[in-house]
Amino acid sequence: MGSGVGAQGEVHRSFAPVRNLFESYLAEDPSFSAQLCIYRGGDRVVDLVGGPQLDRESVTGVFSVSKGVAALTIAILIDEGRLVLDRPVADYWPEFVAADKGLMTVRQLLSHQAGLPAVDGRFTLAEVVESAAGAERLAAQRPHWRPGTAFGYHALTIGILMEELVRRVADCRLQDLYDSAIRAPRDIDFHLGLPESDDARYVPIQDAVLTVEQHAEVATQPPADALAELVFANVAAAPGNSVDGITTNNPLVRRAGPAAIGGVGSAHGLARLYAAALGHVGAPIADRSTFDAMTQQHSWGIDRTLNVTNCFGIVFMTPQPRMPFGSVRAFGHDGAGGALAFADPETELAFGYIPVPMQHPGGADHRSVALARLTRNCAGA
Amino acid sequence: MGSGVGAQGEVHRSFAPVRNLFESYLAEDPSFSAQLCIYRGGDRVVDLVGGPQLDRESVTGVFSVSKGVAALTIAILIDEGRLVLDRPVADYWPEFVAADKGLMTVRQLLSHQAGLPAVDGRFTLAEVVESAAGAERLAAQRPHWRPGTAFGYHALTIGILMEELVRRVADCRLQDLYDSAIRAPRDIDFHLGLPESDDARYVPIQDAVLTVEQHAEVATQPPADALAELVFANVAAAPGNSVDGITTNNPLVRRAGPAAIGGVGSAHGLARLYAAALGHVGAPIADRSTFDAMTQQHSWGIDRTLNVTNCFGIVFMTPQPRMPFGSVRAFGHDGAGGALAFADPETELAFGYIPVPMQHPGGADHRSVALARLTRNCAGA
Amino acid sequence: MGSGVGAQGEVHRSFAPVRNLFESYLAEDPSFSAQLCIYRGGDRVVDLVGGPQLDRESVTGVFSVSKGVAALTIAILIDEGRLVLDRPVADYWPEFVAADKGLMTVRQLLSHQAGLPAVDGRFTLAEVVESAAGAERLAAQRPHWRPGTAFGYHALTIGILMEELVRRVADCRLQDLYDSAIRAPRDIDFHLGLPESDDARYVPIQDAVLTVEQHAEVATQPPADALAELVFANVAAAPGNSVDGITTNNPLVRRAGPAAIGGVGSAHGLARLYAAALGHVGAPIADRSTFDAMTQQHSWGIDRTLNVTNCFGIVFMTPQPRMPFGSVRAFGHDGAGGALAFADPETELAFGYIPVPMQHPGGADHRSVALARLTRNCAGA
Repeated sequence: MGSGVGAQGEVHRSFAPVRNLFESYLAEDPSFSAQLCIYRGGDRVVDLVGGPQLDRESVTGVFSVSKGVAALTIAILIDEGRLVLDRPVADYWPEFVAADKGLMTVRQLLSHQAGLPAVDGRFTLAEVVESAAGAERLAAQRPHWRPGTAFGYHALTIGILMEELVRRVADCRLQDLYDSAIRAPRDIDFHLGLPESDDARYVPIQDAVLTVEQHAEVATQPPADALAELVFANVAAAPGNSVDGITTNNPLVRRAGPAAIGGVGSAHGLARLYAAALGHVGAPIADRSTFDAMTQQHSWGIDRTLNVTNCFGIVFMTPQPRMPFGSVRAFGHDGAGGALAFADPETELAFGYIPVPMQHPGGADHRSVALARLTRNCAGA
Repeated sequence: MGSGVGAQGEVHRSFAPVRNLFESYLAEDPSFSAQLCIYRGGDRVVDLVGGPQLDRESVTGVFSVSKGVAALTIAILIDEGRLVLDRPVADYWPEFVAADKGLMTVRQLLSHQAGLPAVDGRFTLAEVVESAAGAERLAAQRPHWRPGTAFGYHALTIGILMEELVRRVADCRLQDLYDSAIRAPRDIDFHLGLPESDDARYVPIQDAVLTVEQHAEVATQPPADALAELVFANVAAAPGNSVDGITTNNPLVRRAGPAAIGGVGSAHGLARLYAAALGHVGAPIADRSTFDAMTQQHSWGIDRTLNVTNCFGIVFMTPQPRMPFGSVRAFGHDGAGGALAFADPETELAFGYIPVPMQHPGGADHRSVALARLTRNCAGA
Repeated sequence: MGSGVGAQGEVHRSFAPVRNLFESYLAEDPSFSAQLCIYRGGDRVVDLVGGPQLDRESVTGVFSVSKGVAALTIAILIDEGRLVLDRPVADYWPEFVAADKGLMTVRQLLSHQAGLPAVDGRFTLAEVVESAAGAERLAAQRPHWRPGTAFGYHALTIGILMEELVRRVADCRLQDLYDSAIRAPRDIDFHLGLPESDDARYVPIQDAVLTVEQHAEVATQPPADALAELVFANVAAAPGNSVDGITTNNPLVRRAGPAAIGGVGSAHGLARLYAAALGHVGAPIADRSTFDAMTQQHSWGIDRTLNVTNCFGIVFMTPQPRMPFGSVRAFGHDGAGGALAFADPETELAFGYIPVPMQHPGGADHRSVALARLTRNCAGA
């Protein structure tokens, strides 16, 4: 375990200010723990851990940071031409034509424009963990807005939608494709589906009950919008499931690794993963032009679910005024607990950060953006 | 007349908290009067009135609540396939091709996307009351924005546009179609065109001069935007007409019942009407699938006229962060005086609320949303 | 030079309140100087100058006010049918097809929807001054957002894009077309490319270094968004060029007159120019219907570059809540230094205003809008 004040680990001398900032966070709050790992190109230039709850081998749940990891997996199918952004979803998934969705494109579906942030009623935990049944409900669902007229964060459902697309296109689970094509060949310490053998390293998410609520609370002013309520009720899953039941604290969820919220790993796993996305760890995951296409901004304006200005490419979050974590070419995702992971092709930086306990309100905490910006300065951008 | 503190009327025991809240409003302001009526399915579960100015038989003008009533009438034509949302307006109304509007669809026209919230210059009162002439001016008008690039509340003109569509499609007045197909068969105490025989029950709108101004004032920060000015100048009608002249206090307006602003009735009339929309009073007005199509969100973002975030389906208002009156499936409309009426298919609730005097600023007052939300809780949603 | 308190010049008696307001600004700030000139129809009804730094013959740089002047030049090509708004840009400029821009229309390009507010890296000063090389980079650039999904102020690049369109369509420099077709025949004291012979009249922009920064600072909350950074880095041009180097204080810039930022002139030049746009000075520049088409609102919502609500026609700014300078039909442009120039077809007013030193924050200062609104009231609108 870390000492509680000083951080453990190594930092390249150019990034010494990053260590100072990281340690200042540990010093100002003795209950705060975090991992921070940064690659520049193929070199690990920052690898720090501190605070009472984490050591370098710890892994924990990072909620929506998982979406970026799933998007890297989707990139493979786009890169191979097996999934084409401008084709109708129904070309791959015929049942999706229901409720007047026959013309909706994969591009719309994966940029939070589909109007499917929730289903009427709630998902059962089973529909989230084994998502084919959840996907069946989404295929039947009337979009909450007319596709093409709005966008809004699909907090839970974008994972179910990505998983179904992989099943239809590649005839396997997204998690299995991630594991075989990305994680295993590069020895990346980030899992969509944590093996039981790694459970000893798992640090439980703390405050999860509060935080899922906070995510909704922050997101809505007043917190009472019906669509936001429905989305977060969907996240909280079926009556009879505790809220805790849908986080990776639940072994069922941890083992399954739902693409929207179920990833578990370490900051160095995330940094290594995004370094791989930049082509610096093993074979390229996909061509840069594929990432360029996916990370172009597709959605901008007031997010209908969260009711704040927001910005998305194909699944990936990209930097924007409310969250300026990198250059215009950067791409990644934050998570409800405060974690952040991204790559920046302009600087060749790959960044992974995980705080414990979860930060309030949800989403990347201010520390993550401050660390990211300082890192960019140190890299000379 | 009501007692001034306690409310008159009946409340099903499940909804007793609604009575308490309603009475608290009467108690905190002796000048406040209101009617509140709520159906659950076909049962009237709340029917209250209180305050010095209203009794159960009173009717008054409810401004834009009328738009929802007109939309229920439009639903008949859509349901019968006589009006098709994706066809160009000009298919029904050939003169509408002018000023490059040949491709504008009925869907755009009825979701406040047409760019026709006002005409250059002002309408005369006659152009509002007998709207064929007003429609002729709108047919010639260049849209204030390029259709498809924005939306903005068509405070007055959406009524004229709906009326013209009915004339072109059904060869009759919208008001007559409402009366014969909806109101009369179900004995609904809400009128687009109040018969002279009901004038004795009419409670004049108070503060109308101020309130039309306030509507503009609230809506625009600063209140000086040219488009908002023009819209509200259009509402205020031609020079020589007093502002009072365009409210239902003017017998000409009251008798004609313009679809945008001219409805007169009681809260129990409105609740019964929306219960009918849910199929619980007489024959269905239209199939649920028709209402599903009309109540899907079509417009979201910053309303160009009102300069606040806003949200519309086909004519109907739907719940949103700024106005969370029901579930994601609810639909209805508020009015400048503070009235609110809607149906919620999720809970099978139908809600009608009318306050006197008019509330400042315009639109549904906070009490209406609080009452609606409490009602939903009582219904066990 | 002006006296420092009272204004020099003539005012038609209907506009006496405008003189009073103008003089109040001079009185409250002895360091403030300004020119104000207003036409009604073909008559100059206000022509004032005051403050220590300007006299009636002074000319200075007005930054983005230049964009409106360039748009008047573009109007000629649209009016003649040589440039068609709904045709793909690549019809005129084949290299523009790169990076998936083959379907982008001239209409999108000229309404700040192209997603090209910046290039990756910075422009050199030469690429701005002789913009063919800058245009080559823009032709190759991947749009920062998917065209059709957002808009954002193209602070520098819209000038380069307009210049390239003129080269492709008319085989000449935009500046030369402006000079021969608009300025020279009407003796207008506003220049895109100030002749050396007029340098003696040039009053340097003061505080320019600060103000370009301020433009960014105002525009972004926090000021750290990557796209805004890139746009303003682009404006600041290549490393090695001082910020001062890109304003008209640099003789290279002043002589070239880049369409986005390089115009130099007087308020009476600007007012005369917009009076010409209304057809009151010499032959019409273009048909009113051409201006009607160009001044229809094309973009509305949250500007992706500036992160505030914004509004554009084809290049021109039109009035909106944040900047209510005229009727819904008015069109013109402001500039980073605080200048404002526009025409209003409703009132037949043409307005030119230039303050010195530059106002903070950038864009039309509050005085310009107050003067414009008072002018409109005096004109009896």
